[in-house]
Amino acid sequence: MDLDFEKSDGLITAVIQDYAAGRVLMVGYMNAEALRKTIETGEAHYWSRSRGGLWRKGEVSGNTQRVVEMRTDCDQDAIWLKVEMTGAEASCHTGRRTCFYRAVALGSTPDGDLALRFVETERRFDPDEVYGHAGAAKGTLKSSE
Amino acid sequence: MDLDFEKSDGLITAVIQDYAAGRVLMVGYMNAEALRKTIETGEAHYWSRSRGGLWRKGEVSGNTQRVVEMRTDCDQDAIWLKVEMTGAEASCHTGRRTCFYRAVALGSTPDGDLALRFVETERRFDPDEVYGHAGAAKGTLKSSE
Repeated sequence: MDLDFEKSDGLITAVIQDYAAGRVLMVGYMNAEALRKTIETGEAHYWSRSRGGLWRKGEVSGNTQRVVEMRTDCDQDAIWLKVEMTGAEASCHTGRRTCFYRAVALGSTPDGDLALRFVETERRFDPDEVYGHAGAAKGTLKSSE
Repeated sequence: MDLDFEKSDGLITAVIQDYAAGRVLMVGYMNAEALRKTIETGEAHYWSRSRGGLWRKGEVSGNTQRVVEMRTDCDQDAIWLKVEMTGAEASCHTGRRTCFYRAVALGSTPDGDLALRFVETERRFDPDEVYGHAGAAKGTLKSSE
């Protein structure tokens, strides 16, 4: 491996983009093993910072990510994956296609909380049904939805 | 600010996408001040991890990024910016449109160095001319090009 895992405690940043639609789906993190498994299998694997373990995307929900193209950046501490989603075609644990379903208002000085506007809110699956209590206990579900 | 700056030592991860073409241009990092300035001015500001300082994109090269849309993700520790590039329309310090100008070969077990293939290699500006020695000294130029 010649990617730079040193800058961020053994992790590189992964940007995941929907190959067909072009929207950014999520940001993930990979250690060397997650990167190796992703390259070998063509299925996205990540390092979960909250759970502290390797994680094959979709191992619980069935909504995997097939890697169409992988690129690295100039200083080799980040990768960009173009993926095809399987199953419900959702990448977010909230059931949505993308984790980036809220827009931030621009132009004003954000003294307090940011002004967030919901966009792309369609649920492709019911997270309670898919993850249940076990998922919540593993940190799959977050309160910040 | 209600984004989560705690997970990564005061920084959030920013994914920068070309609004028109859809390609991912770069990954940057923002502290609270960089985020505030980006929201207020509509121009992308970052925190440089290598230089340890605030950085208005394009302050040396003139190639700024005008923010068209900003989104945050489910757990609010990352943002996605869709931008219009000004000037030479290059976001990489190597002079290229995107920092992600090399593809990683998939399928084989990467025992040694990754197999990288150059794609999108057109130089939109000459980095020696734009940054010169001062830029290199500031860490703007890297050896991993």
